[in-house]
Amino acid sequence: MSIRIGIFGYGNLGRGVESAIRQNNDLELVAVFTRRDPSKLKIATEGVPVYHADKAKELADSIDVMILCGGSATDLPVQTPEMVKYFNVVDSFDTHAKIPEHFANVDSVAASSGKIAVISAGWDPGMFSLNRLYASAILPDGKDYTFWGKGVSQGHSDAIRRIEGVLDGKQYTIPVDSALDAVRSGSEPELTTRQKHIRECFVVAEEGADKARIEAEIKSMPNYFADYDTTVHFITKEELERDHSGIPHGGFVIRSGRTGLNSEHNHIIEYSLKLDSNPEFTASVIVAYARAAYRLNCEGASGCKTVFDIAPAYLSSRSDEELRATML
Amino acid sequence: MSIRIGIFGYGNLGRGVESAIRQNNDLELVAVFTRRDPSKLKIATEGVPVYHADKAKELADSIDVMILCGGSATDLPVQTPEMVKYFNVVDSFDTHAKIPEHFANVDSVAASSGKIAVISAGWDPGMFSLNRLYASAILPDGKDYTFWGKGVSQGHSDAIRRIEGVLDGKQYTIPVDSALDAVRSGSEPELTTRQKHIRECFVVAEEGADKARIEAEIKSMPNYFADYDTTVHFITKEELERDHSGIPHGGFVIRSGRTGLNSEHNHIIEYSLKLDSNPEFTASVIVAYARAAYRLNCEGASGCKTVFDIAPAYLSSRSDEELRATML
Repeated sequence: MSIRIGIFGYGNLGRGVESAIRQNNDLELVAVFTRRDPSKLKIATEGVPVYHADKAKELADSIDVMILCGGSATDLPVQTPEMVKYFNVVDSFDTHAKIPEHFANVDSVAASSGKIAVISAGWDPGMFSLNRLYASAILPDGKDYTFWGKGVSQGHSDAIRRIEGVLDGKQYTIPVDSALDAVRSGSEPELTTRQKHIRECFVVAEEGADKARIEAEIKSMPNYFADYDTTVHFITKEELERDHSGIPHGGFVIRSGRTGLNSEHNHIIEYSLKLDSNPEFTASVIVAYARAAYRLNCEGASGCKTVFDIAPAYLSSRSDEELRATML
Repeated sequence: MSIRIGIFGYGNLGRGVESAIRQNNDLELVAVFTRRDPSKLKIATEGVPVYHADKAKELADSIDVMILCGGSATDLPVQTPEMVKYFNVVDSFDTHAKIPEHFANVDSVAASSGKIAVISAGWDPGMFSLNRLYASAILPDGKDYTFWGKGVSQGHSDAIRRIEGVLDGKQYTIPVDSALDAVRSGSEPELTTRQKHIRECFVVAEEGADKARIEAEIKSMPNYFADYDTTVHFITKEELERDHSGIPHGGFVIRSGRTGLNSEHNHIIEYSLKLDSNPEFTASVIVAYARAAYRLNCEGASGCKTVFDIAPAYLSSRSDEELRATML
């Protein structure tokens, strides 16, 4: 018996979930839900029905876990509490500052519906969070560092595209090598925003646009660019499509800490990701937590959970015996 | 109320546990147990009693978690099942091939005593195992690689010291940089033993010993050195003490995998440790799992557990609310 999965929202993340499900024999995609006209949505998996989002609750008995692929700004704060009335759910809510509020909203509904909600599954929040937690529990006397990139920041790319005279653009966040090396040395440096990351922009300008003004506007944009060393490259539409159509990302979580009666020994714990496709990797994490959500609910558990609350063995399709024999 | 910890066995690992406990305000060392004459053992913590190992069971009511610091070859297979009759216990049993047997032996006793045993806590098995599990659950279509070092291998150092004419010696296991780079490229190379690690030996020979013979004996030793590229340096006793008295270790767990409808996207997940003191870091992991063992038992759980079975939040001294607000 496969675990029956629904996908709610069919953008980059939803498509990533669809493709991740194919890599897991114990999972089966049974329906996709969209707020657009379902008759106009063509999905990659043959034979799987597409429904309007409003129809989801009618399929409560046919879906074991609903994976919510909407955005964190306006979709998930509404959808996750609503959907957990009917389904075990997993979302990738990633507005870090609002996680406690989202957790509370979802938890109260899940507790009364008897379902499991896993929120904020992905890599940050998600795998990066796990590594921050494990590393700080092991080395309480130490310091955490998180670096992002090299990767595309959607928010920064959008900000560039809003500038007058810009047709299109992509922004890469890049960790500064010398900062990474300083952290790895165990010296526990204090690093400013500017010292940790640089921002590299590839911009397609309208014909005749004032490139010097565009570059100046980008580099001085508060919050987004002003606190960083930013480089701006003007390229053609064709170059942008050829060289910058991917959605790579990644980053580093490093903890530097000390042990010993006199704190005489240094230790470095480093976790890093190098991802060709940010949404597909996020989807792969989500799908593993969908398996966990289903199993936990089968055992009688309910309520809102995060990656912190779920024992690792629940993520794997292998039995506990097999895991101990092959991976421990 | 602190969690009351006992240390059973006071070698390098036991001393590491003693020092790790000092870094955790919610843990308190209440007793050390030794098979030697307790009156002759001087520990680093004032006011903490040292007892003979035989006396441990009499303190069942005064100790929340007993940390077992014996060796995997002969101590833990006997001690862990025996001690879990009376205490929640944590061990660092590291004979990978015998973990299923050890688990079964410990689990049956723990189930009837109502205590928790966490076995094989440390970094390999332990944190490395966790990273193998998480990474393979997220990227089912991929390949795992584990590299060890640079670090001191006790077993290989002992093997050197058994050779005639050798007064003392230290062996470092070193991952081969080009192999690491090949794995990180995503090409999923097949690597031989020789391609993954080199072995570097520092040897103090007796005066007049035949160094050429010693070097040849080391390099041709089956299992230990014959399958590796090994370098041998002869140094003085003083140099060995000055430059090689530490017990550093570390390593890398890397998973390379693919996602996408046509497996078109590559991803690299890498976890690495760089440790000044192998026993102190292992002890730090054990101590975090001692906290988890106590909490699980307080919730009514019993039986044998591994790092795979324990939700990450149990390891941290912080509340779930604080973890979500600060680390997720």
